[in-house]
Amino acid sequence: MADLGNKRRITILGSTGSIGVNTLDVVNQLGGRDAFEVAAITGNSNIALLAEQAKACGAELAVTADEKHYPALKDALVGTGIEVAAGAAALIEAGARPSDWVMAAIVGTAGLAPTLAAASRGADIGLANKECLVSAGELFVKAVAEGGGRLIPVDSEHSAIFQSLEDDQHHAVERIVLTASGGPFRTWTREQMAGVTADIARAHPNWSMGLKISIGSASMFNKALEMVEAKHLFNVRPEQIEVIVHPQSVIHSMVGYSDGSVLAQLGCPDMRTAIGYALTYPDRPTLNVERLDFAKLARLDFEAPDEVRFPALRLARMALERGGVQAAVMNAAEEISFHAFCAGRIGFLDMADIVERVMEEMTSHGSATTMDQVFAADAEARRRAGDLIARNELAA
Amino acid sequence: MADLGNKRRITILGSTGSIGVNTLDVVNQLGGRDAFEVAAITGNSNIALLAEQAKACGAELAVTADEKHYPALKDALVGTGIEVAAGAAALIEAGARPSDWVMAAIVGTAGLAPTLAAASRGADIGLANKECLVSAGELFVKAVAEGGGRLIPVDSEHSAIFQSLEDDQHHAVERIVLTASGGPFRTWTREQMAGVTADIARAHPNWSMGLKISIGSASMFNKALEMVEAKHLFNVRPEQIEVIVHPQSVIHSMVGYSDGSVLAQLGCPDMRTAIGYALTYPDRPTLNVERLDFAKLARLDFEAPDEVRFPALRLARMALERGGVQAAVMNAAEEISFHAFCAGRIGFLDMADIVERVMEEMTSHGSATTMDQVFAADAEARRRAGDLIARNELAA
Repeated sequence: MADLGNKRRITILGSTGSIGVNTLDVVNQLGGRDAFEVAAITGNSNIALLAEQAKACGAELAVTADEKHYPALKDALVGTGIEVAAGAAALIEAGARPSDWVMAAIVGTAGLAPTLAAASRGADIGLANKECLVSAGELFVKAVAEGGGRLIPVDSEHSAIFQSLEDDQHHAVERIVLTASGGPFRTWTREQMAGVTADIARAHPNWSMGLKISIGSASMFNKALEMVEAKHLFNVRPEQIEVIVHPQSVIHSMVGYSDGSVLAQLGCPDMRTAIGYALTYPDRPTLNVERLDFAKLARLDFEAPDEVRFPALRLARMALERGGVQAAVMNAAEEISFHAFCAGRIGFLDMADIVERVMEEMTSHGSATTMDQVFAADAEARRRAGDLIARNELAA
Repeated sequence: MADLGNKRRITILGSTGSIGVNTLDVVNQLGGRDAFEVAAITGNSNIALLAEQAKACGAELAVTADEKHYPALKDALVGTGIEVAAGAAALIEAGARPSDWVMAAIVGTAGLAPTLAAASRGADIGLANKECLVSAGELFVKAVAEGGGRLIPVDSEHSAIFQSLEDDQHHAVERIVLTASGGPFRTWTREQMAGVTADIARAHPNWSMGLKISIGSASMFNKALEMVEAKHLFNVRPEQIEVIVHPQSVIHSMVGYSDGSVLAQLGCPDMRTAIGYALTYPDRPTLNVERLDFAKLARLDFEAPDEVRFPALRLARMALERGGVQAAVMNAAEEISFHAFCAGRIGFLDMADIVERVMEEMTSHGSATTMDQVFAADAEARRRAGDLIARNELAA
């Protein structure tokens, strides 16, 4: 007989994306319904998968972000006893529903409010959503601290840094070294990149990931967001954050200490390792994932990132140095530019141009002391990015 | 005014070797006589350096291992107030003299008794001497445990593993991955190696080290000893110990966990990082050593070790699997073979042949439950190795 009292109660915000699917795989590897009870899962438009997951893991609540999918989800789960809800408020309710651990894997700014709801009630958070830290870093970190839960990063890079950080040795941390695959255009010229489509840009060399992250990897905006994340997660100064291009993505990231030591976490490109680590931290689970074979790897390469070909890194440094809502602005403008690029409305290189222009336009905006101010800056950046894209189209 | 009560009291066994010299450099970097008081330092035949070190660090006692150097050391330190002693018993006395921390850096079996004396009285031990663990692993680890001090490895490889091990996660350790530079003959055939001299073999590609370790790196006997060390230091099974050739020696070693993660420590080839870590553990010191520049490194290579060209690794695995005094036998026979090779009495490849023959001759010897039994097995292995070398010469 399973002892209900010993089960870990978990929530998966964004369960139909690649992080969510992998989280459920890890949950199954670690005992599934014998070891976990699922308070809620949420998805967006993939209703068939969301319903299937809810039934398989025995979720109490299944939420679709999009209200127009409510009837389909309701139909799919009729007779199962699983509660069904839809819309932005329901997402927040999913985050707020009591559980021990929450995977925060909703992509984009939409993930902010539900994750904050989970953080505020003191749940441990496995954080895969970048925007919580990029757009609302200070506020989010404060909410977690006040809630009393733990924040464990799930990005492979930040998980690696988290794993390479020693307790009580923060004073000895000299630098955080974020590794970057360099994406599919690592060796391309700007001229070559100018003409690429989203289908070309999404072909990541090492990881199988969602579209947003794949394109972000190609433009290195993903790394730009990670630089901001690192600042908030690890409380380091901008100049302590280093990016090194490492095409094999085997060293997931590193921490350099004052004695010359560098600690690193390495692994196969399988996000289940970081997910499992976040789920059972501080204990390490036993996972059926591929192990590194160093003789087979044969070599690992490193090169300095090129901020001319990949302006995203320069923009991130600018956002970190300026502080305030500049990172939120960068993130929002990038999200709009990303959608415009995927829709074929702007070119690959236009994304960084638009982000930089919006950042320049909004330098007078100071720090956000409330989430509403974050949302306002975010909304204004989106509007301005949209305007620039529309004007760009008119001019063409 | 310096507060005497706050000074760390340290002992350096083997202060004139490369580890000892680097230890004193680290001590100076971390405050020198303002931060440390030196209970004793010991050396062998480099009396001028030993006397100079004793005066510079204000040692209470200076010991030369070799009684014939006593007058010279006495002369060099006349009028300084520094006590002078010589011989094996004096080395043990140096280890036994009260101090908080002891660098155990006497090369070879000679380091065993003085280090044991330090371990037994509960000093924290920075362990650079391999033989304590290779020859007397169980007994030495027991002595440290009974004494109540901490054992912190100083070999770059074991320091890396120590740094990559997480508290309370021993159950999750799947493997220890020892990196090996492969030495100067990494790409050589056995035919090419057959004719090399000690002067050729000592030219290590990455590290500036003592002669014994340099030759041991060329033959990979150094790595063989490290495999045995790792077993005792980290309480792992032989099959959990992996060796990977990594010519750049940047990744100093790694630990593989059950979740697929590999944690690694990296650094420039400078033993002061591991020495400083051992000296101030669990705190990390700030050291003036070169920092890794990953863009400059450009690449790291890995290849499987070749146990045919480097039989030492196969012999180590054999010793680990057989247990008992086989590792002590391997170590003693290797030390005799090393001296014979340096004297030009045997060829480079003969070293492993002699070690294997002595190990085979002594398979019936069981475990040692006392240090005397260790010393007896060690002495017998030396005698047998000496006999084989002499017979070899007669036959030639």
